Amino acid sequence: FPSRLPNVGTTIFTVMSALAAEHQAVNLGQGFPDFHCDPQLIDAVTRAMQAGHNQYPPMAGVPALRQAVASKIEALHARQYCPNAEITITAGATQAILTAILACVQPGDEVIVLEPCYDSYVPNIALAGGVVVRVPLTPGSFRPDFAKIAAAITPRTRLLIINTPHNPSATVWTADDMRTLEELLAPTDVLLISDEVYEHMVFDGAEHQSAARFAGLAERAFIVSSFGKTFHVTGWKVGTVAAPAAMTAEFRKVHQFNVFTVNTPMQYGLADYLQNPAPYLQLPAFYQAKRDLFRQGLEGSRLKLLPSTGSYFQCVDISAVSDLNEADFCQWLTREIGVAAIPLSAFYGDGFDQRVVRFCFAKKDETLRAAIERLRTL
Amino acid sequence: FPSRLPNVGTTIFTVMSALAAEHQAVNLGQGFPDFHCDPQLIDAVTRAMQAGHNQYPPMAGVPALRQAVASKIEALHARQYCPNAEITITAGATQAILTAILACVQPGDEVIVLEPCYDSYVPNIALAGGVVVRVPLTPGSFRPDFAKIAAAITPRTRLLIINTPHNPSATVWTADDMRTLEELLAPTDVLLISDEVYEHMVFDGAEHQSAARFAGLAERAFIVSSFGKTFHVTGWKVGTVAAPAAMTAEFRKVHQFNVFTVNTPMQYGLADYLQNPAPYLQLPAFYQAKRDLFRQGLEGSRLKLLPSTGSYFQCVDISAVSDLNEADFCQWLTREIGVAAIPLSAFYGDGFDQRVVRFCFAKKDETLRAAIERLRTL
Ligand SMILES: CSCCC(=O)C(=O)O
Ligand SMILES: CSCCC(=O)C(=O)O
Repeated sequence: FPSRLPNVGTTIFTVMSALAAEHQAVNLGQGFPDFHCDPQLIDAVTRAMQAGHNQYPPMAGVPALRQAVASKIEALHARQYCPNAEITITAGATQAILTAILACVQPGDEVIVLEPCYDSYVPNIALAGGVVVRVPLTPGSFRPDFAKIAAAITPRTRLLIINTPHNPSATVWTADDMRTLEELLAPTDVLLISDEVYEHMVFDGAEHQSAARFAGLAERAFIVSSFGKTFHVTGWKVGTVAAPAAMTAEFRKVHQFNVFTVNTPMQYGLADYLQNPAPYLQLPAFYQAKRDLFRQGLEGSRLKLLPSTGSYFQCVDISAVSDLNEADFCQWLTREIGVAAIPLSAFYGDGFDQRVVRFCFAKKDETLRAAIERLRTL
Repeated sequence: FPSRLPNVGTTIFTVMSALAAEHQAVNLGQGFPDFHCDPQLIDAVTRAMQAGHNQYPPMAGVPALRQAVASKIEALHARQYCPNAEITITAGATQAILTAILACVQPGDEVIVLEPCYDSYVPNIALAGGVVVRVPLTPGSFRPDFAKIAAAITPRTRLLIINTPHNPSATVWTADDMRTLEELLAPTDVLLISDEVYEHMVFDGAEHQSAARFAGLAERAFIVSSFGKTFHVTGWKVGTVAAPAAMTAEFRKVHQFNVFTVNTPMQYGLADYLQNPAPYLQLPAFYQAKRDLFRQGLEGSRLKLLPSTGSYFQCVDISAVSDLNEADFCQWLTREIGVAAIPLSAFYGDGFDQRVVRFCFAKKDETLRAAIERLRTL
């Protein structure tokens, strides 16, 4: 039978993790921590299982967890979401994004993505029958080019997907950026997916500018986040979507026939854990220290460090080190130098190659030091 | 924005569970156990978390769990599936079915469902842009009508969805049924989803006839199962898909951009637990005793018992009890008698009403006794 995704292979993250394992490379490719989560979080999940929380939870998620999410958004961004009608718990952010796209994109609708972008967006749009409209972020700075975004909007545009802090570029959108987008979208019906999974990793005193802070964005946005990223449990697959009630209603129609519900013990465990005063507040300092360790380690090396102001990624320019294209360089680096990275070209539909690769610094300090030692031989 | 699923409301299971909670009714509606799982299974998940299995697992699932699934299929159905290329772990059976449909159904392709059918199938097909072709099971017996199925197949038919043991009718397909289907499909390219989530609940010495047993079905089938149903942990959301390598490759393309991966600690815990000698082998006797308790309790009542030879459901004819339609009867039964049930009309596109409702007997004996006491007042 003909493929629904003829141009899709295995995700670059899986490919590079497998290659890293094969060559015993230090895996700074796929974004996941190699350190443990808080043991109290594990205990909370164990207690939930032992208390018998092992059957289907409510379809939209465990009420206490939805309440905790709403409280957090109100505390951090001063916007109220109704836990019953406007917050949904998902099986990770990827499931949230596919579900939102399936819920609002009709065949033929246009969806704007800003490249480089996470590799699930484009196949997700294809599965919904949507038409992908690619707008590049400004080469070099990865800043949004609002003139280009405005020019891409047509009467057929249903949806725009943004992502801040940004994977892979490690840049963040400013409040001015968000306000500019708000003005730009004001005269339109364009919906927004705001992928904010790295919301708690913003450095140098900057603040995460959630779409929730901007009324003109919040009213049209599916705001997506991820407990996996925030609490160092990427394998637990628990995410969230906050959206106005009418959008949430359509989201849940699809959600209930996709996963139906999300892992019950993890939801109770997370709800319990979130009663502690804001366990995510230490995250910026925690990751900033790792970023600084990694950057300092590479200073004076032939890898040129790009800014990293958010996310748990650090991009480097490889042009002084190698003539290989990004993808071949990452293969070579994994096999020969023993450090896995991700080529930025994997985040572009046309494989655009700007001689930049991405490292993940969500790793133990000793892992980062081992990688640094190898990378300094370049 | 226009709805992708304009005819869809909240699933009947969620609606009836909410109503049951509101009226403190005995909830025999939504299918889930009200008793505990094996504490050893909980311990195995706790050990997995404590061992640090909290990050992304491999995209297709934890290898030991895929191996355990392949070994089980070989032991029970004498067919070999390659754990690497032909078994995928999913976030429950519902996610497996949507993902399989999105992977193989192109806009305009026809998909045959046999009504009554599980309520996710039809919206899943709509999301893929497929055309739903409804073929009724024989009224009264719920037996497949192969002449009708054959007549429904056209050159545009991409996929047929079957389900045995069957929800909601509690019937099972015989080996002869499966062979007849095999012959019927032999000259076609029609793919198959075989929803076998109740595979371990087959009564009176009958055997589950998996599509895996029939070469001409296995070669074209996504065979879907569910650890949640088998191990009394419906909230853990771990299912499986077995399919030939080429079909699995397309399945995984969609899977990786839907949920990407499935809860890591649950996968390790289940893999560990499955090392015990076949913990599912006691399941038929366990559920048969519950079925018998429930049926004996209702004997002599004015509810007419239909046969229940598989699944954890019992259907009853309500015509001697009420003139209400099935849906209204279930509402009334929940509010006034204090027992929740599911109307079979919810499993038909046109709401066909045959005066039959479904009870779930996956409940503690005391729960079943409490329900019986109330139902005998009818
Ligand atoms: C979902 S696997 C990849 C993890 C990730 O988000 C990334 O590495 O970009
Ligand atoms: C996925 S919720 C419903 C459980 C179930 O399979 C049923 O009751 O039929």
